[in-house]
Amino acid sequence: MSKIFLGIDLGATNIKVGCFDSQLTLIGKTSIPAYADMEPKVAVEQIGAAGEKLLADNNLSGPALTAVGIGSTGQFNLSEGFMLSNPNLKLFQNVPLRKMLCDRFGTPVVLDNDGNTACYGEFTLGAGKDVDNMVFFTLGTGIGGGIVLDGRLVHGAKDNAAELGHIIIYPDGRRCGCGQKGCVEAYASASSTAKRAAEAVESGAQSSLKKVLDGNGRISCKDVFDHAKAGDTLAKEITDGTAKALALVCINMLHTTEPQRIIFAGGMIAAGQMLLNRIKQFFEEQIWTLKKETVEICFATLGEDAGLIGAAALARQAGN
Amino acid sequence: MSKIFLGIDLGATNIKVGCFDSQLTLIGKTSIPAYADMEPKVAVEQIGAAGEKLLADNNLSGPALTAVGIGSTGQFNLSEGFMLSNPNLKLFQNVPLRKMLCDRFGTPVVLDNDGNTACYGEFTLGAGKDVDNMVFFTLGTGIGGGIVLDGRLVHGAKDNAAELGHIIIYPDGRRCGCGQKGCVEAYASASSTAKRAAEAVESGAQSSLKKVLDGNGRISCKDVFDHAKAGDTLAKEITDGTAKALALVCINMLHTTEPQRIIFAGGMIAAGQMLLNRIKQFFEEQIWTLKKETVEICFATLGEDAGLIGAAALARQAGN
Repeated sequence: MSKIFLGIDLGATNIKVGCFDSQLTLIGKTSIPAYADMEPKVAVEQIGAAGEKLLADNNLSGPALTAVGIGSTGQFNLSEGFMLSNPNLKLFQNVPLRKMLCDRFGTPVVLDNDGNTACYGEFTLGAGKDVDNMVFFTLGTGIGGGIVLDGRLVHGAKDNAAELGHIIIYPDGRRCGCGQKGCVEAYASASSTAKRAAEAVESGAQSSLKKVLDGNGRISCKDVFDHAKAGDTLAKEITDGTAKALALVCINMLHTTEPQRIIFAGGMIAAGQMLLNRIKQFFEEQIWTLKKETVEICFATLGEDAGLIGAAALARQAGN
Repeated sequence: MSKIFLGIDLGATNIKVGCFDSQLTLIGKTSIPAYADMEPKVAVEQIGAAGEKLLADNNLSGPALTAVGIGSTGQFNLSEGFMLSNPNLKLFQNVPLRKMLCDRFGTPVVLDNDGNTACYGEFTLGAGKDVDNMVFFTLGTGIGGGIVLDGRLVHGAKDNAAELGHIIIYPDGRRCGCGQKGCVEAYASASSTAKRAAEAVESGAQSSLKKVLDGNGRISCKDVFDHAKAGDTLAKEITDGTAKALALVCINMLHTTEPQRIIFAGGMIAAGQMLLNRIKQFFEEQIWTLKKETVEICFATLGEDAGLIGAAALARQAGN
């Protein structure tokens, strides 16, 4: 019988469940709502029911299921399989999530944070599928990360490696939500890009974005890139600040784990070639001259399913 | 017969050779001079002769030798065993050093850069001997580095990982010898610390270091720390700049590979607790508040033999 894997992406507003074969082809997927005060027991039961229905709908009930992978935001003790806390799901405190899911599905379960599962998805089937060493950034509300070295995710001493959004690039700079100053997340996440633009407009900078702010009461990251593409000087400055900050972390990661490829994912990559080209230009301007670097900087290819695929890929690894 | 390993440290002015047993106890060591236009063939022959004499002097001639490890500055292709270039030994261009030493000694040979060998020495027998994940910095003329993850050195895609001195901490800051601006090496190496002090004095800053500069024509890193300890305000500012720069790279490494321990080595650690305590204070001030970090920041314990020991430890790994 061929092996079947479930990948689960535990998000703030919904829980996605995908069913994959041993080639990690997506056979089917489903989604259930999540909410801030969802109880862990309830979540596990609903995930179990959704997974079983998904398998049944695809004529895969019963012993076909080999292993389950799950990715989520939050703090973990991965070796013990605990979710320690989750900013989105407040009742998930010190929850033995791996054991609960093992008991529910009767299979091995692999738990990881969502930066790692998305990274591992791109590594397995996406923009990193032909390399052994990669670094991964998701550019969304925050900046998440993942590092693959010699084919394996880097977890660190206490499962908090690859918090790449919190690399400090401007000491004593903008305050980040994490408490540090000058994190790359405070400059180059989608939210921070929008926020820096709004602050500049509010403090009187000339920009076509003023109409957006006056009209909508807010400026989105997409607005900033759209106006930069249309030629607005302030919007260009702001997006250049984003691209430069990302180029700086690329350089720092090159000097740290030296990946073959650096891959950007998340909502902000919708900005397209304009963003990618500027990151590459700043990288070339700022990188050392001791040797010619050949690292490739590119965008992710799997879109929103990267986390599901990565969770299933980790399950496949555990189930082999 | 018990196994015997040679560790070699190929430096700018001398080549150290150490002989170790399988517990990595140093049985004996010797040194031969190196010079800028030393030919690779000559170096290999002299290393061979020095190694043989060392073994003979310790009644270990012949088949006892199991493997040889060598660390050096320079650029490498480690998988092929080539030294591509060496800033100190100009004739070492595209040299198949591993094969040459294999042929000379008739044993397996392991080649690595000197940051990695020193790191691996501290990992095996020194300040990192009881951890699996560590980050290592040498504070000398430049800043070298090494990363151990799950017990293994990180080499990266092209053997240039862990160039930790070239992590950019102050974008558009001081020019580094590597061509980048704002590298930690440009602030916090022993040379850069001395240079920042001399620049400040030359541009008129009040300091007891002025007498040193006037008297000696230069200021050393030791002078700066000595005067800081004696209460000189400028010297304190300069050494604080060094400590803060080092704290920032500690934070960035914590968020990247999340080591259990961060270890500083090199001449500058002679500054002692004053330096270590300030690094720790800046780390505590600058680190995020999301969770309590428990990474230990400390000094290396093996001194100048770390590279020899690390080279022998890599040889032991290869010879097992």
